[in-house]
Amino acid sequence: MTNPTNQFKGIITYPITPFAENGEVDIKTLTTLIEQLIIDGAHAIAPLGSTGESAYLHDEEWAEVAQASINAVNKRLPVIVGVSDLTTQNAVKRAKIAEKAGADAIMVLPVSYWKLTPDEIFNHYATIADAVSLPIMVYNNPATSGIDMSPELIVQLFTAIDNVTMVKESTGDIQRMHKIRLLSHGELPFYNGSNPLALEAFAAGATGWCTAAPNIISHWPLKLYQAIQNNDIELARELFYKQLPVLEFILKGGLPTTIKAGLKLRGLSAGTPRKPLHALDDAGNKKLQLLLQTLEECA
Amino acid sequence: MTNPTNQFKGIITYPITPFAENGEVDIKTLTTLIEQLIIDGAHAIAPLGSTGESAYLHDEEWAEVAQASINAVNKRLPVIVGVSDLTTQNAVKRAKIAEKAGADAIMVLPVSYWKLTPDEIFNHYATIADAVSLPIMVYNNPATSGIDMSPELIVQLFTAIDNVTMVKESTGDIQRMHKIRLLSHGELPFYNGSNPLALEAFAAGATGWCTAAPNIISHWPLKLYQAIQNNDIELARELFYKQLPVLEFILKGGLPTTIKAGLKLRGLSAGTPRKPLHALDDAGNKKLQLLLQTLEECA
Amino acid sequence: MTNPTNQFKGIITYPITPFAENGEVDIKTLTTLIEQLIIDGAHAIAPLGSTGESAYLHDEEWAEVAQASINAVNKRLPVIVGVSDLTTQNAVKRAKIAEKAGADAIMVLPVSYWKLTPDEIFNHYATIADAVSLPIMVYNNPATSGIDMSPELIVQLFTAIDNVTMVKESTGDIQRMHKIRLLSHGELPFYNGSNPLALEAFAAGATGWCTAAPNIISHWPLKLYQAIQNNDIELARELFYKQLPVLEFILKGGLPTTIKAGLKLRGLSAGTPRKPLHALDDAGNKKLQLLLQTLEECA
Amino acid sequence: MTNPTNQFKGIITYPITPFAENGEVDIKTLTTLIEQLIIDGAHAIAPLGSTGESAYLHDEEWAEVAQASINAVNKRLPVIVGVSDLTTQNAVKRAKIAEKAGADAIMVLPVSYWKLTPDEIFNHYATIADAVSLPIMVYNNPATSGIDMSPELIVQLFTAIDNVTMVKESTGDIQRMHKIRLLSHGELPFYNGSNPLALEAFAAGATGWCTAAPNIISHWPLKLYQAIQNNDIELARELFYKQLPVLEFILKGGLPTTIKAGLKLRGLSAGTPRKPLHALDDAGNKKLQLLLQTLEECA
Repeated sequence: MTNPTNQFKGIITYPITPFAENGEVDIKTLTTLIEQLIIDGAHAIAPLGSTGESAYLHDEEWAEVAQASINAVNKRLPVIVGVSDLTTQNAVKRAKIAEKAGADAIMVLPVSYWKLTPDEIFNHYATIADAVSLPIMVYNNPATSGIDMSPELIVQLFTAIDNVTMVKESTGDIQRMHKIRLLSHGELPFYNGSNPLALEAFAAGATGWCTAAPNIISHWPLKLYQAIQNNDIELARELFYKQLPVLEFILKGGLPTTIKAGLKLRGLSAGTPRKPLHALDDAGNKKLQLLLQTLEECA
Repeated sequence: MTNPTNQFKGIITYPITPFAENGEVDIKTLTTLIEQLIIDGAHAIAPLGSTGESAYLHDEEWAEVAQASINAVNKRLPVIVGVSDLTTQNAVKRAKIAEKAGADAIMVLPVSYWKLTPDEIFNHYATIADAVSLPIMVYNNPATSGIDMSPELIVQLFTAIDNVTMVKESTGDIQRMHKIRLLSHGELPFYNGSNPLALEAFAAGATGWCTAAPNIISHWPLKLYQAIQNNDIELARELFYKQLPVLEFILKGGLPTTIKAGLKLRGLSAGTPRKPLHALDDAGNKKLQLLLQTLEECA
Repeated sequence: MTNPTNQFKGIITYPITPFAENGEVDIKTLTTLIEQLIIDGAHAIAPLGSTGESAYLHDEEWAEVAQASINAVNKRLPVIVGVSDLTTQNAVKRAKIAEKAGADAIMVLPVSYWKLTPDEIFNHYATIADAVSLPIMVYNNPATSGIDMSPELIVQLFTAIDNVTMVKESTGDIQRMHKIRLLSHGELPFYNGSNPLALEAFAAGATGWCTAAPNIISHWPLKLYQAIQNNDIELARELFYKQLPVLEFILKGGLPTTIKAGLKLRGLSAGTPRKPLHALDDAGNKKLQLLLQTLEECA
Repeated sequence: MTNPTNQFKGIITYPITPFAENGEVDIKTLTTLIEQLIIDGAHAIAPLGSTGESAYLHDEEWAEVAQASINAVNKRLPVIVGVSDLTTQNAVKRAKIAEKAGADAIMVLPVSYWKLTPDEIFNHYATIADAVSLPIMVYNNPATSGIDMSPELIVQLFTAIDNVTMVKESTGDIQRMHKIRLLSHGELPFYNGSNPLALEAFAAGATGWCTAAPNIISHWPLKLYQAIQNNDIELARELFYKQLPVLEFILKGGLPTTIKAGLKLRGLSAGTPRKPLHALDDAGNKKLQLLLQTLEECA
């Protein structure tokens, strides 16, 4: 519960995982993309999250993307690798691979088929934490994982497990952040994982914004963060409402689907999401193009 | 849809309705309370809201409280009177009484027994609006009313009905406020009615905070608003987290129940809520006393 | 908790409350309607329920409908009068009026503006029960009342309060009925108040079906009940699926709205629901007419 | 959409997947268990469902269990193999393996990480259906899969895809079954997958009950089915309420967890569920033992 994690703050950017025409992972495009994300001002890179289609990758593909991402960043920024898996055994295996590959932290989402009790979740985290010495970002995202961790449980993980040092809250419920702050007496840094909550999460004291948005709107999230750093809520609000239509669109349409469509609109071919996920349809593409153009004209 | 309502902003304070020992409305204590709320810096007074137990009053009692509140304020501040009722006919009747009594605006919550369609809600508002010339604050509070108005419907009311000029959003869902702002191109002023969302609603651009909290924590809400006015989100955040435990407590326990208990702790006997509502129990009173003391010590 | 209530079983029919052109209660049509409901085979008549727009009536109107209904039935069947009101005081008043008017039982729904705790609900029932000597039907219908009573609380009311002897469950959740039966060891008779659950509630052992459907589909509910009485689930299923489209339609459209429309289609002019409720629109009327015709052709 | 599937009816029994001490799949115990399930009167055997921890198995383990189950049944009964997987590609692969191994039908649950649109779900089924010639049981279980298919979508799958011939509905919402029956004009056989809904699903016309309960309460589900076959709802109800406490317990505690505990209580050591799932705790074991004893004493 010591917390030397102030290296993780600001805009934590989540790259998608590009696929080639033949359906295989496209490492070259991933490397290009990560380079661009660094140029756009990311404070950390987080491969193999929800956006990275981690859940849809074979173990070998997962390991390949982890290593390639760490190589691409090349120690210029911290790298937080998503190691989530349905079984504890496989999550441990991934955590060890990430550590060996040079990750600076790992992110763990408890994934469900059968619902988990708080004890089952606790032991899942404790087992993974025992297997590595990296800092762990607890990740709560019931909409994708099917498991909703209460603020009480999250703070318990933080208090009881040494290398649990951060939490990414993606419910979109600002009251969760309030609760985490009150329960941990401000000690547990929380990060916002719900794009349309970005402004208010920062207002509430979030340490960072975990987001895939920079893939397609580059420095806009960074500018919002900087306004907050300058204690300028009025400017932050203005910047937020400009990017909000894009943030809402990518959330609603599913991040891999919409971000890959947006990258293509910007000229980077990163393939389509794995089936059963579909590529964005024509109407969606037109809408997204319009939203991106409108935002550019604001700049 | 013209909007000369900038007189309504900041801290809109909702007095409770005091009852005497015999169960009757206690006008004298109401007058005392309103005087105190004005001293504590309210920007407007809003009697006969949810907090004012409007739903539990007979028509005669309702009219008495409306008139007494307007008299007590005596034009020093704007008065927004809640005129909600289950039937359109009775809501119209109350709206006219409020207007005649000298209200500056009325607040209307569509109350349900049978669920209402959007058309039924629209006509309810249109009929009330036709009957008076006062500005109307649309009030969305599905937790008490059983009716949830979408941002789309709310903006439609604003666009189509001349004297609908404001909306009080009490769902506690910040995305509703975002949507109202985007859909109305920033034209429809929104007010936050969910106490634990106060900080973030202001961050998102709320024009005011509709709250019963000043009844028991006097100027704390005002100080938060002033920090926002000064574009100082860091101070606002600090002030917010200090009062948050009280804000959560009064929301969770039911406002008439907790506010009346708090007033008694502060020395003003305002009776207990109407049955079936109970007075706050002993454990609740101790908890509330502790929260109020802790807050005072912060000052 | 003694239970001499086996007089209440089978089809408990809920008449609507007719309104004249001028908006006033139309007692003459109410009397005609009740006569027809008795002819169609009702086992009990239950005025002033949700269907009877009880919540939308003034106290005087409520009392008038209670007395007129009891008079119309004229002791040929048991009469269960709905006495629900937001305040305990007014519910008690109505309970006493119903008893004096000759009701055989009263039905009580705890109505909310502010949510009620289990203790508040318990005391609401206990206070009403103390005031009369009639059997009380507990009524759980969170969709209209905003209050959801758990099976545990319902069985507690039955166990602790002498004249609480029946429960009408309208959540549409068959597991509630299972729970009530298990928790009360089969002692607490439960009645189904969710029309599209009629078949399965009887399968699960419901003592009766509280329904407004006979207003417009006469003996169809009765036939279903008789098939169940004859232990013929195959016939019951056949009869159920024939009437199900009507049952779904009237639930979805709101009972006062759809039943009044259906009565008009059958030649009885009972007016329209009180505003803000609307009359059924043209498309709805055509749909309902088609459903009623289709059902008649099945006979 | 032709429907020669009347071979699938009655009690469709779901074996758990036993694990040895070392965590590996225990084929010998699986064979013993399936033999017992056949003796207890199952009408079909369905390995690799939710109960079979299919989601927690490696591909090789999955294939091993599929083949071993088919071998153990040895054509005495139909075998329905669960082939669900997160990616369409892997579900197709499993479907082909099941077909080659001799399955009589496959069951497909659309599993989510990112939510799927109706089009995505449709194409997932269509692609799997194209790859095999076996009948397909559509499986809707949002509580585990995170995807809720509407009755409309389910009937569309049945209408448009030739070898989609059955649906297992596990939401526990009887109205879904009504809707499926009405929309498909009684053509699409539905099977109940929610244990505590067994009685009412049969009342509503379910063709079968997909259940893991026979693993620990042997012939009780069969007896309920037989009563229904004999059009004896009164006996069915009596049998149902006797087994209901067990059915509720196993649903609430998670099927792999509770069924494996129950098997151990009955003398068959089938190991514990894969982590993060825990074995049933002591209090749970005592409760389950009591429930099983109480049921036996009813016999």
